[in-house]
Amino acid sequence: MFKNKKSSKLFFVAETKLTNDKMEALRHCKYLCYLKYYLKPQLSYQIYSCFPDNLKLQPEIFMTPLLTADYNGYQATFQEAMKLTIIIGQFFGLNPVTGVSEIDTTKLRFQIQSCRFVYSLLSIIGQCTVVYFCLLELFTDSNPNLSSNSALVFYVTNCITTILFLRVATRWPRLCQLISKTEASDPSIDRTLIKKCRVTSVLVLTMALLEHLLSDLSSIAGIIDCQKGENVYEAFVVAGSPWIFQYTGYSPYVAIFTQIIGIQFTFNWNFSDVFVICISFYLTSRLEQVNRRIESVFGKHTPSSFWRTLREDYSRITGLVRQVDDVIGSIIFISFANNLFFICLQLLHTLAEGIRRNPSCRLGEPDERPFQGYEQTIYFVYSFGFLITRSLAVSLIASRVHTASREPAHTLYFVPSTAYSVEVQRFLDQIHGDTIALSGLKFFDVKRGLILTIAGTIVTYELVLMQFTGVSPTPSPSTITIPIFINSSYSKV
Amino acid sequence: MFKNKKSSKLFFVAETKLTNDKMEALRHCKYLCYLKYYLKPQLSYQIYSCFPDNLKLQPEIFMTPLLTADYNGYQATFQEAMKLTIIIGQFFGLNPVTGVSEIDTTKLRFQIQSCRFVYSLLSIIGQCTVVYFCLLELFTDSNPNLSSNSALVFYVTNCITTILFLRVATRWPRLCQLISKTEASDPSIDRTLIKKCRVTSVLVLTMALLEHLLSDLSSIAGIIDCQKGENVYEAFVVAGSPWIFQYTGYSPYVAIFTQIIGIQFTFNWNFSDVFVICISFYLTSRLEQVNRRIESVFGKHTPSSFWRTLREDYSRITGLVRQVDDVIGSIIFISFANNLFFICLQLLHTLAEGIRRNPSCRLGEPDERPFQGYEQTIYFVYSFGFLITRSLAVSLIASRVHTASREPAHTLYFVPSTAYSVEVQRFLDQIHGDTIALSGLKFFDVKRGLILTIAGTIVTYELVLMQFTGVSPTPSPSTITIPIFINSSYSKV
Amino acid sequence: MFKNKKSSKLFFVAETKLTNDKMEALRHCKYLCYLKYYLKPQLSYQIYSCFPDNLKLQPEIFMTPLLTADYNGYQATFQEAMKLTIIIGQFFGLNPVTGVSEIDTTKLRFQIQSCRFVYSLLSIIGQCTVVYFCLLELFTDSNPNLSSNSALVFYVTNCITTILFLRVATRWPRLCQLISKTEASDPSIDRTLIKKCRVTSVLVLTMALLEHLLSDLSSIAGIIDCQKGENVYEAFVVAGSPWIFQYTGYSPYVAIFTQIIGIQFTFNWNFSDVFVICISFYLTSRLEQVNRRIESVFGKHTPSSFWRTLREDYSRITGLVRQVDDVIGSIIFISFANNLFFICLQLLHTLAEGIRRNPSCRLGEPDERPFQGYEQTIYFVYSFGFLITRSLAVSLIASRVHTASREPAHTLYFVPSTAYSVEVQRFLDQIHGDTIALSGLKFFDVKRGLILTIAGTIVTYELVLMQFTGVSPTPSPSTITIPIFINSSYSKV
Amino acid sequence: MFKNKKSSKLFFVAETKLTNDKMEALRHCKYLCYLKYYLKPQLSYQIYSCFPDNLKLQPEIFMTPLLTADYNGYQATFQEAMKLTIIIGQFFGLNPVTGVSEIDTTKLRFQIQSCRFVYSLLSIIGQCTVVYFCLLELFTDSNPNLSSNSALVFYVTNCITTILFLRVATRWPRLCQLISKTEASDPSIDRTLIKKCRVTSVLVLTMALLEHLLSDLSSIAGIIDCQKGENVYEAFVVAGSPWIFQYTGYSPYVAIFTQIIGIQFTFNWNFSDVFVICISFYLTSRLEQVNRRIESVFGKHTPSSFWRTLREDYSRITGLVRQVDDVIGSIIFISFANNLFFICLQLLHTLAEGIRRNPSCRLGEPDERPFQGYEQTIYFVYSFGFLITRSLAVSLIASRVHTASREPAHTLYFVPSTAYSVEVQRFLDQIHGDTIALSGLKFFDVKRGLILTIAGTIVTYELVLMQFTGVSPTPSPSTITIPIFINSSYSKV
Repeated sequence: MFKNKKSSKLFFVAETKLTNDKMEALRHCKYLCYLKYYLKPQLSYQIYSCFPDNLKLQPEIFMTPLLTADYNGYQATFQEAMKLTIIIGQFFGLNPVTGVSEIDTTKLRFQIQSCRFVYSLLSIIGQCTVVYFCLLELFTDSNPNLSSNSALVFYVTNCITTILFLRVATRWPRLCQLISKTEASDPSIDRTLIKKCRVTSVLVLTMALLEHLLSDLSSIAGIIDCQKGENVYEAFVVAGSPWIFQYTGYSPYVAIFTQIIGIQFTFNWNFSDVFVICISFYLTSRLEQVNRRIESVFGKHTPSSFWRTLREDYSRITGLVRQVDDVIGSIIFISFANNLFFICLQLLHTLAEGIRRNPSCRLGEPDERPFQGYEQTIYFVYSFGFLITRSLAVSLIASRVHTASREPAHTLYFVPSTAYSVEVQRFLDQIHGDTIALSGLKFFDVKRGLILTIAGTIVTYELVLMQFTGVSPTPSPSTITIPIFINSSYSKV
Repeated sequence: MFKNKKSSKLFFVAETKLTNDKMEALRHCKYLCYLKYYLKPQLSYQIYSCFPDNLKLQPEIFMTPLLTADYNGYQATFQEAMKLTIIIGQFFGLNPVTGVSEIDTTKLRFQIQSCRFVYSLLSIIGQCTVVYFCLLELFTDSNPNLSSNSALVFYVTNCITTILFLRVATRWPRLCQLISKTEASDPSIDRTLIKKCRVTSVLVLTMALLEHLLSDLSSIAGIIDCQKGENVYEAFVVAGSPWIFQYTGYSPYVAIFTQIIGIQFTFNWNFSDVFVICISFYLTSRLEQVNRRIESVFGKHTPSSFWRTLREDYSRITGLVRQVDDVIGSIIFISFANNLFFICLQLLHTLAEGIRRNPSCRLGEPDERPFQGYEQTIYFVYSFGFLITRSLAVSLIASRVHTASREPAHTLYFVPSTAYSVEVQRFLDQIHGDTIALSGLKFFDVKRGLILTIAGTIVTYELVLMQFTGVSPTPSPSTITIPIFINSSYSKV
Repeated sequence: MFKNKKSSKLFFVAETKLTNDKMEALRHCKYLCYLKYYLKPQLSYQIYSCFPDNLKLQPEIFMTPLLTADYNGYQATFQEAMKLTIIIGQFFGLNPVTGVSEIDTTKLRFQIQSCRFVYSLLSIIGQCTVVYFCLLELFTDSNPNLSSNSALVFYVTNCITTILFLRVATRWPRLCQLISKTEASDPSIDRTLIKKCRVTSVLVLTMALLEHLLSDLSSIAGIIDCQKGENVYEAFVVAGSPWIFQYTGYSPYVAIFTQIIGIQFTFNWNFSDVFVICISFYLTSRLEQVNRRIESVFGKHTPSSFWRTLREDYSRITGLVRQVDDVIGSIIFISFANNLFFICLQLLHTLAEGIRRNPSCRLGEPDERPFQGYEQTIYFVYSFGFLITRSLAVSLIASRVHTASREPAHTLYFVPSTAYSVEVQRFLDQIHGDTIALSGLKFFDVKRGLILTIAGTIVTYELVLMQFTGVSPTPSPSTITIPIFINSSYSKV
Repeated sequence: MFKNKKSSKLFFVAETKLTNDKMEALRHCKYLCYLKYYLKPQLSYQIYSCFPDNLKLQPEIFMTPLLTADYNGYQATFQEAMKLTIIIGQFFGLNPVTGVSEIDTTKLRFQIQSCRFVYSLLSIIGQCTVVYFCLLELFTDSNPNLSSNSALVFYVTNCITTILFLRVATRWPRLCQLISKTEASDPSIDRTLIKKCRVTSVLVLTMALLEHLLSDLSSIAGIIDCQKGENVYEAFVVAGSPWIFQYTGYSPYVAIFTQIIGIQFTFNWNFSDVFVICISFYLTSRLEQVNRRIESVFGKHTPSSFWRTLREDYSRITGLVRQVDDVIGSIIFISFANNLFFICLQLLHTLAEGIRRNPSCRLGEPDERPFQGYEQTIYFVYSFGFLITRSLAVSLIASRVHTASREPAHTLYFVPSTAYSVEVQRFLDQIHGDTIALSGLKFFDVKRGLILTIAGTIVTYELVLMQFTGVSPTPSPSTITIPIFINSSYSKV
């Protein structure tokens, strides 16, 4: 031990430094140190030689290609990753914070005097008005049916979504600054992250636009076919929100108003999914970065201080997941609830209606509809497929946060006995004992198993709902017999 | 180490003291010590300087504003917090212990010779009588229907509630004394606790009163409308409990008796919820107090003895949760079962009946009813909304005990490596391994996830129950087609 | 340390002894030691004084009234506790081992040449014959109904039960010897255990006999009423197993045969529950004994070796639970499956039939039936109540094994820091990490929560099953309105 | 310590060796060492005598019969165990890797230029063609029924299975090489493993062939009976896949094509189950081997290094389970989903149709069918029984991987206190914290409890599905009364 006297002191200094509160300064220094190791590996010997002699040190662990190749000052900040998504959202009155295009997160503000806030507020008032008329319809209608009820659910949940995003906005600047601080001490070096977020935003919202257009097309095709001679635009607008026009009468201003609010509703529904996906991408990327660092020392000897640093890195990210979950939990909850409800509804509709041509109103006359009556079918198939895909994507991508948080354990099991220390044990205890996952207001954790639970719930509800509507997946027993008898080679299934 | 010889001794004394059994005396002393630290921070150096030198001590951790600002001799005792709730309960024959207004918990007694016990006993006998007549009706009625069955369930569960509260009363004094002892060593300094408990009691019970009045109004309105010329009061009373009067005939004494018992039943149902809420408030407040202490040292260096004290504080509160759960578990169970049953029932009723005007018995004549036939609808909507709100409140507030018990872990993960000790590890092991929550007789733990499970159960049962009554949430497929076709822009949902 | 030189040696000897393999001898010695402590407390000082000086030793922990009062050479052996139950079972051909009345477990044998085995084998053959005829009926009957199906399920499961008990018998002697070995080193001192087991056996089986008699009475009353003039006994026997007599024709030998097999079937069903209850009683009692020892040192200072001894005691019992579960898991599985199936069936029957008088076959003539047509109703109500009670009892009592296995944790959290050692940590790790419970072939663990899951399953299945039979718990919506309107004060529920 | 100077060095060398990276070389050496111990037990003293003196060493633990008897150079490699299964699979276009018969795993290749790959590709194209025609039928058919839908599900899932096996093939060589490397350091000595895998493959696939033949027989019998005079073969082929022939018309080439694809479909369904079973056998066998080593030291004193070796052995196998699960997770998922779907379907069919003779088309004429109309019944009963058995077998065998991974804990609880070390603790932490199991794409873990969950799901779905088809398990209430009244002695159930 005596021959290492000098390095021992050096180590002591490092230890002392790590124990004081000014972490951030040290963090920056730490990454410089990493770089230094790559350039001057002889230094690492001095630092770690203060460990017991029978520990075979492997300074090359700090020179894994991962760290050297990727770290060239490039940083993928949260601000940058979310920029496009947030800006698109603000066009529709969601998350009205100022300063989202700035690199400096301290310039983020939630200001009541800003245009964005006023626009958001107007959007909420407009949406509430539509909800109000829809509720009025429900109370006064002598014969409410599923269609108006599901429209009401659609309007109410999306109106709530807008309000929830307003609430998120009040906490958004603080969250971004916290994330920014974390990034300062441990920058994200994932080069694909920003691209992934942007592509997802554009892709999902473009598909949502297509869905909206198909819906309008389907509606217009029906009107052209059945109400020839009328003002198509007026008929189309009135058909979209009959409960409002029966109170106000037709007016072009009301028509524009209902169209704008209608687009906002459709957008909100999709945007909350996009928002959750992008944030999940970021969090997963951060966890994966720590995981890759951990995996790079799989089965190798590493000093206790190395594990301490990694554990602290890990804890910082998991702490971040909790903070983020606190802020966006309500968005996740409403997004999942919304998707569950509309999958049940559309599945029921698909099973009840099947895939068939819509009969024309004008028998005997030539059909003027662009797809000869298949407009609605195309719309429904596309809409249902898109809904299923989007819901699955949100669930799978959000659940990867949980999966990634469990990954380090599998490397920690293989830490050699001589390198095993209280730090490794503490790391493992944390992974085993804590549950890191995005959650819906803590009511459910978004894990992979959740998807199966939701799927089972959908099947159960669907089977029961089908009984109400008289939709039967099977013919009666007597009619089963014949096809099975004749085609018994495929009826073996 | 030699220069700290004196303080080392001092520390040793402290250690020795902590290990003997006379904890309470020490506890009081501990809080005095806390105060002393704030006045004479130089003392803390002496005490903690016996720790290894490389530990950077931060005496300021004991001077967090939380502890200095709040601790001015103010104490929020359990006795004080529950006083109003218990006294109101005793007016309805629940929890008949004497001495609930005393500050000294040792004066709490469960006495068989007390008026309160006699009153409780009479209440139970009265309630059992009503249950007996209701059962008789069930057995002899040739055509039992859901109404009489659900009334029976209502009567039986509330009668059981009264009996369970009698059982709680026998264990209440001991529980209060235990809690009082805990408070002596670690007083609660939550200034909002008592207010929260009182406001909740008054609010919920006032709303319950309003519900009762609406119910009576709805009943009287019907009688005035349909049975003009009769004695309204007599008709109202008989309509309330026909099964009794068909055996006894009308008598003003029986009428008063049924009215009193009826009020008791309604009250019991609400009171068990209030009772669970108040106790949850108290337990959460205690856990939060420990949590705030723990959070105040987030990421800071603290000696092992500090963590030991906190762990002991934490264990004491979690031990308390177990004791309380042992006593009130049956109340929680019946409260949750009751709420689940009546949510299913009222939801079914609401879906079957919808929101509509009750037709008048006297066609052609002017309607004398105060709300023109909407009395019952108003009552049902209010009652159902109140029931849902109350059930959600109980679940959410009771589940916060569990949430609060998990909080400390997130600070413990950030304890610096140099301050990590066996105490911290033990604390974490306890949080990870133990489940601290109120429970329904240990059959279910009241956690946030439970609410979702209950909601799912309600939806499933409701869907199946609706098939019996022929209530359909959807029109038949053929009638779906048209509105969707015409209004396809909202049917996109 | 030097002044304790002698006792240090003494301690070393104890440690060495504990580490060698001859545990049993030591165990006996250990209990003698315990007794010695009570007589000569000065000795304990010598033994424990080899611990660090700052540990305040409390020799009085070994003098808790529990241990001194109860341990007077009295032992409640497993053999003794199960004796009556096993013997009763053997009268019906179950668990055919010889030597169950012996105190010495080494005399237990599973012998193929014994009368008991031959009787068991004959019973199985007889039962299989009945099952065969019943299956034949199912295949050839053009119109199978629920009654014959449920009879088949009843016969098949009880026949399997008999076979499973034969399999248990082959492993019973080894299990008893293992338990006996455990008892030799740590005798059970629970004085109520044997009584509890015997009372349960007698009580449950007497109630089962009463159920059988009520069933026969109900059947005979119907025959007397409707088939006057016929041979009542013959008609009764034929009605009991029509599928056999339609092949064999009536014969007194076949009648006796079917009656004996019928009694065996009824008995088997009840016996498997009794068997599980008795074993659960024993295991819970063993765990509670360890728990009481642990609780007796709540918050006190105890040497590490004390915790080691307790942990070893605990591990031994939990190991026993696993061994027992291995042997009787199949019995638990079939018992729970059986109870679940018949609760669903009987509940359906009760809801469909209600509680009403059975109309007489002889209109106009005086009714000769003992209960004027209520025989069957009485039988069904009694049978259903008994079934629910028994099922609940099995579940609750078996789940107490799991509850008892978790108890020690709550004392271990309060072990003072100075007494905390690797032994305590290991003990806690084991409690947190392991799940000790009886299980149904490892498919489900018998915990308290299971009961709620089963109850939920029953409600779901029942609601769906009721739709098949057209049984409705609610009148149609139109008929709901009136009673609620008139009786709105109770319809508030 | 000084007297053991020499052995101490020896031990040090061993420690150093264990800490370097060249594990494989050491592993081989380790087994040689084991053998050496058996021959020269005096050596073991030297090696372990460097431990503290109060540790009673038991060198005989290394001489358990298990290790000496079984290890004679015999090795059961994964390559060998899977050989037959993989080769059979390749006959049907699954898992097209070359070099499966080689002993050397490095010769395994996934080559696009190989015949096997081309054959697989052709199979997939063929299968997709059939799926395409089947989908076409669904879209154009005016009256789609359950039969064509279930055939579609059957075709689609089995087509996906083929594609998934192609994906497995791309990762198969790397997986085998990894397993081979693990086997090099710790060879499998399970002599029954290879036999078990082969017998299972042959047995299951033979039974599948029988099912296919019965299906064809049932189909042909119907054709002979009803379509006398026609070309039986042509009618049979057309009946098997009517949707193709209605587009192509009958052609012998298309007939052969549909027959081959049909056989491939049937085979795929069974093969994925066989594949999962064989891999589960291998993984369980590896875990059991470690478990037996651990159990051989139950309650004995073993040095810390012994536990380290075992923990490393265990971690290596559990790491293997994760790797294997990564590769075959999709196969497990589709196998379980497939089995669940078809159990529901066949159960529904069985309940709807019952077990009865199929009426002949030719009334009055002699019946020429081989089983007089019972062909289809025999086929359905056999098929359903086989499906249930196979599904249960897959679930039970795959869940044994999880069960086996939990086993070591029960020995670790009994490690004597003196032998307890950080290695044992780490081992236990790993077992308690990690979940080792095969999984369906991580959506569900294959544990024993899963089987009950699936069973419950099947019952629920079945009950609801039965309502659609009008299949009733119970007669109406009025018809229940009579048989129960008359036969009340068996209706007691």
